[in-house]
Amino acid sequence: MIRFECDYSEGAHPKIIRILTETNFKQTAGYGDDEYCEKARSLIKEACGAPQADVHFLVGGTQANRTVISSILRPHQGVLSAFTGHINIHETGAIESSGHKVLTLPCPDGKITAEQVENAYQEHWSDETHEHMVQPGMVYISNPTENGTIYTKSELTSLSEVCKKRGLPLYMDGARLGYGLVADTNDLTLEDIARLCDVFYIGGTKAGALFGEAVVIANPALQKDFRYFIKQNGGMLAKGRMLGLQFLALMEDGLYLDISRHAVGQAMKLKRALSDKGYRFLYESYTNQQFPVMPDAHLDALSQKYAYSFWEKIDDAHSAARFCTSWATREEDVEKLISDISAL
Amino acid sequence: MIRFECDYSEGAHPKIIRILTETNFKQTAGYGDDEYCEKARSLIKEACGAPQADVHFLVGGTQANRTVISSILRPHQGVLSAFTGHINIHETGAIESSGHKVLTLPCPDGKITAEQVENAYQEHWSDETHEHMVQPGMVYISNPTENGTIYTKSELTSLSEVCKKRGLPLYMDGARLGYGLVADTNDLTLEDIARLCDVFYIGGTKAGALFGEAVVIANPALQKDFRYFIKQNGGMLAKGRMLGLQFLALMEDGLYLDISRHAVGQAMKLKRALSDKGYRFLYESYTNQQFPVMPDAHLDALSQKYAYSFWEKIDDAHSAARFCTSWATREEDVEKLISDISAL
Amino acid sequence: MIRFECDYSEGAHPKIIRILTETNFKQTAGYGDDEYCEKARSLIKEACGAPQADVHFLVGGTQANRTVISSILRPHQGVLSAFTGHINIHETGAIESSGHKVLTLPCPDGKITAEQVENAYQEHWSDETHEHMVQPGMVYISNPTENGTIYTKSELTSLSEVCKKRGLPLYMDGARLGYGLVADTNDLTLEDIARLCDVFYIGGTKAGALFGEAVVIANPALQKDFRYFIKQNGGMLAKGRMLGLQFLALMEDGLYLDISRHAVGQAMKLKRALSDKGYRFLYESYTNQQFPVMPDAHLDALSQKYAYSFWEKIDDAHSAARFCTSWATREEDVEKLISDISAL
Amino acid sequence: MIRFECDYSEGAHPKIIRILTETNFKQTAGYGDDEYCEKARSLIKEACGAPQADVHFLVGGTQANRTVISSILRPHQGVLSAFTGHINIHETGAIESSGHKVLTLPCPDGKITAEQVENAYQEHWSDETHEHMVQPGMVYISNPTENGTIYTKSELTSLSEVCKKRGLPLYMDGARLGYGLVADTNDLTLEDIARLCDVFYIGGTKAGALFGEAVVIANPALQKDFRYFIKQNGGMLAKGRMLGLQFLALMEDGLYLDISRHAVGQAMKLKRALSDKGYRFLYESYTNQQFPVMPDAHLDALSQKYAYSFWEKIDDAHSAARFCTSWATREEDVEKLISDISAL
Repeated sequence: MIRFECDYSEGAHPKIIRILTETNFKQTAGYGDDEYCEKARSLIKEACGAPQADVHFLVGGTQANRTVISSILRPHQGVLSAFTGHINIHETGAIESSGHKVLTLPCPDGKITAEQVENAYQEHWSDETHEHMVQPGMVYISNPTENGTIYTKSELTSLSEVCKKRGLPLYMDGARLGYGLVADTNDLTLEDIARLCDVFYIGGTKAGALFGEAVVIANPALQKDFRYFIKQNGGMLAKGRMLGLQFLALMEDGLYLDISRHAVGQAMKLKRALSDKGYRFLYESYTNQQFPVMPDAHLDALSQKYAYSFWEKIDDAHSAARFCTSWATREEDVEKLISDISAL
Repeated sequence: MIRFECDYSEGAHPKIIRILTETNFKQTAGYGDDEYCEKARSLIKEACGAPQADVHFLVGGTQANRTVISSILRPHQGVLSAFTGHINIHETGAIESSGHKVLTLPCPDGKITAEQVENAYQEHWSDETHEHMVQPGMVYISNPTENGTIYTKSELTSLSEVCKKRGLPLYMDGARLGYGLVADTNDLTLEDIARLCDVFYIGGTKAGALFGEAVVIANPALQKDFRYFIKQNGGMLAKGRMLGLQFLALMEDGLYLDISRHAVGQAMKLKRALSDKGYRFLYESYTNQQFPVMPDAHLDALSQKYAYSFWEKIDDAHSAARFCTSWATREEDVEKLISDISAL
Repeated sequence: MIRFECDYSEGAHPKIIRILTETNFKQTAGYGDDEYCEKARSLIKEACGAPQADVHFLVGGTQANRTVISSILRPHQGVLSAFTGHINIHETGAIESSGHKVLTLPCPDGKITAEQVENAYQEHWSDETHEHMVQPGMVYISNPTENGTIYTKSELTSLSEVCKKRGLPLYMDGARLGYGLVADTNDLTLEDIARLCDVFYIGGTKAGALFGEAVVIANPALQKDFRYFIKQNGGMLAKGRMLGLQFLALMEDGLYLDISRHAVGQAMKLKRALSDKGYRFLYESYTNQQFPVMPDAHLDALSQKYAYSFWEKIDDAHSAARFCTSWATREEDVEKLISDISAL
Repeated sequence: MIRFECDYSEGAHPKIIRILTETNFKQTAGYGDDEYCEKARSLIKEACGAPQADVHFLVGGTQANRTVISSILRPHQGVLSAFTGHINIHETGAIESSGHKVLTLPCPDGKITAEQVENAYQEHWSDETHEHMVQPGMVYISNPTENGTIYTKSELTSLSEVCKKRGLPLYMDGARLGYGLVADTNDLTLEDIARLCDVFYIGGTKAGALFGEAVVIANPALQKDFRYFIKQNGGMLAKGRMLGLQFLALMEDGLYLDISRHAVGQAMKLKRALSDKGYRFLYESYTNQQFPVMPDAHLDALSQKYAYSFWEKIDDAHSAARFCTSWATREEDVEKLISDISAL
């Protein structure tokens, strides 16, 4: 079985294994208060052109989302999100569990617009009985989205402007951020993101780390007491250095983007092959996730040798599937898959 | 600086690093649904003599406590705990954050008694207005406690009996369980614990793993839907196999107890040296944490070369400190410390 | 200004004022543990043909919904509800605040179907990663709905069957239950409701009481410890007898239904007048709320003398409004309104 | 049975019944947005000398405490309170249910001191690992306390100063505020309280109203969006005018203090009789609650004719009991009780 069903099927990039091994017997303080974390934080702030930012390392994405969102909202506020947002669908209600409603906006492809945010704001505040409703308190976006799509600089700028105007902190879930940054269609840099978002995270789990997400709180007004939130939400790793070490490896010498480029390169090869075969795509993705709509018979045939994610039923004879590549995807496996697809 | 201030100053036992390295490129399913986790779960159930148990791997202790406790209690119930219990003092209110009061019982050394539990139960239910008060819903103990003390089989049996009688699930926080199991004064086995407790966890983070705690739900009535709770509480590791791999290493060939024996052996050497020097101890610990009461001048002198934890002020000239050993404690470092103490 | 914008513009039915006055100096125990409450509970159980039921008096609807729902769900579960359900829209996230997601189902007129519930159940459990999603744990309906529509016996029976089959307690929000029970199109009795629902409440606030909702827990499995939930949610009235006294007045001599008949009778007169005028209705309501779609100019004209609720914009020149009647609606005021409408 | 076990055994002061009756058919807007509430708010602000204050009417004390506290704290913060504070003991964990730990301070008689608050603050912030502990975020006091004791102006001033210095909002639970304001030993005015506390409430339920507490948010920084919190916590009464009407009656012509004076006068008569009999008191109370320590045989004898609250067992033959007076306590009943006590 060759696995394309997600981007976390293997361990970690060898450089990460190496740095963990090399430093294994070094004694350090716990809870992220060590030199490796300190150095990794510096590298990230530098890469983001954000010396004023606070950087915190958390273990996983659901934890990061829950921790960030609960640190920002007051109890009567909710978070605006695409209906398809990870926080709305795939986190077992972690946001609600911390007391907040996810205020969903419809979207065809995982992205929401500045206009939708402005309308939601207007709709709330123009209602006479607004205190009977959850108040929009911040905006959550994912980039790339759960559908593989990405925001343009223009779109993110518009979102950022309406958020600033309406006092709604803008938070970007970057679980797969690297795969977005290297996409052909991308025109955003880490500096742009740090300037346009109040908080975002650079995903490690899905981009070469054993685990770990680097939360960047770019807006100083939102930095206060954040470590309490990490601890309360169960995210304060005793051996916190492991998070620092992994991000040290990822941020040095451009490894994070190299990894992402490899994955997206393989995904684009696959995309062309799927397209050549005549399949359409559910979403226009130029990142490491591809969503072809295929005959069920073809999907069944592939499932003998390949793991992919079933996405949704399209009609009686077709379904959409998700194929993912990652830092660890082997060129030869992609070639095999392409060849088997052509032969269908 | 030689560190004795905690038991998580280094990385992981070399066997763990090795197994992570060796399996790094193997592809597996995510979220703990892989063969390594499956095998580790089997080994743990076997070691506990508890084939009916469910075993889940979580990342850290606060997360494990919060996840287990919130899975057991109904909203109007609280958890009985020693005042010094980790959940009451050192988890930034994670239990309260999930809606539950920690109902504290006084204790001189971290341990609570069956009688205290029975009294708390009686006190609640004999009050006419009991519905105006939080209902005791379960019992939390740590073993070893935060003070290094351990429960005897007789004590745990009594606790278990009153808990069963009163319908209060008994949960043991085993963050340092290994160090308790190998103590000279211990008469409990994993089988005993699995039989006497409803839920407990075998701590990895403080006993040789990079991170990870193995939650054993021995009582089938408490097993339902537990994976939802893990996910909601941010503890569902995408690359869950890393938890399985680490516990596989720990549970094979008795490594977990070997590690613990090493640590406790070093602690006992230190204990004798401290005792020979004439210091008294704040708590009678035969595990890897020692709490000598020392002249402040002595502590200051040691702090030039050694890291320890300040515990509490005793009087104008004395304080209690905590010294920890671990799997990674080097015999030569303990010898140095002992020699420097003798010379004070 | 004559008010038709809601059904709580006045105080209480005179019988309620009278009973409160007459018993004012009587001493009783607090918190609902008095003879008036006891008698009212008996009358309600009798009216529902449900001797096994528990009846509790709460102050308001949001409180009742939050208290009931949080007493039923485990933390990883959510409540299925029409998108337009009061808990989803107009309770400032009270349900989420207690940790639970509202799992919404689309609906044209406030009602959901057994098929929708079955599909939602299937969709959840057939997903391989269902533990990453909120588990449906119960079903919430309102009857009459927020749109004035009501469930038929056949519809409620189907809902009840699927709920029983799938282990999802069925809860009916009866804020305006009386107005439904007396509707021409209604074929449900209190006995039916007590048999088909696990929990429901008989609304007092909007049907002649100063305040108060009678929660009927028909399913014994859901009765345990409910008074704790009332207290924790701030709903345990010290002078609880006031709730008992009001429901005593309402349940004696059929006052509750008499009140409702008066209100619905006035609403039907208004409905005919609106219909005669040629307005269409947003929802087909035979209860005390009417939702005509009217020219904005007409609405503006009426607003000089009458209060109504703006409901939603229909097009550039039309809007839907809500007109409510109640126990206190004066026939002469309805006549005036009808006459003014005819003259538009 | 003559009831002295609490101060909410009867309905409401006749003036309140009268105003409710007189205004019963008047139509008003809902949710406290009516002229009666507006007028009552004005009277309260005037009485407090606090034109900048916001006044909100809530139904009960637990609800008020939960709503106020959850509006002030961030999730990682707790509320400092006397161990005996109502929020810690008698609200079924309502505060924890909203996510916050009650950080208890020991106290002999229900009162805490400025020094205790300062020490708790210091203890938290001087700990290196303070983010592992709940951060003190505000201070809760009750006045009179649950033990009938009251704060002097000097004590409250000291508390206020340390709270301001440390950024901890000071909140006073005034469930029985009137009974404190008229005590012989009191030197605090409403103006003092509004100046020294950030938030407090004037209790109605226990002082002559059917129900209701007037929350005064004196500190403008804490006023934002408070109505959302009321609604979310189930405290937004549809017929909100009833709260306004009751406080209108209480605040006009000094009724609130008159009621309180009557109750405290009766309590002082009883206090003298108990003292004359040779009983000691558990707490030195000059308010409407008295806590004599009496032979169990005497208590048993009285229980044939009188209801009182059992407070706590003192020794094998003695217990403390609580006797309360209220606006409705009849002089003749107190005389009877005194006479029966003398005869014991």
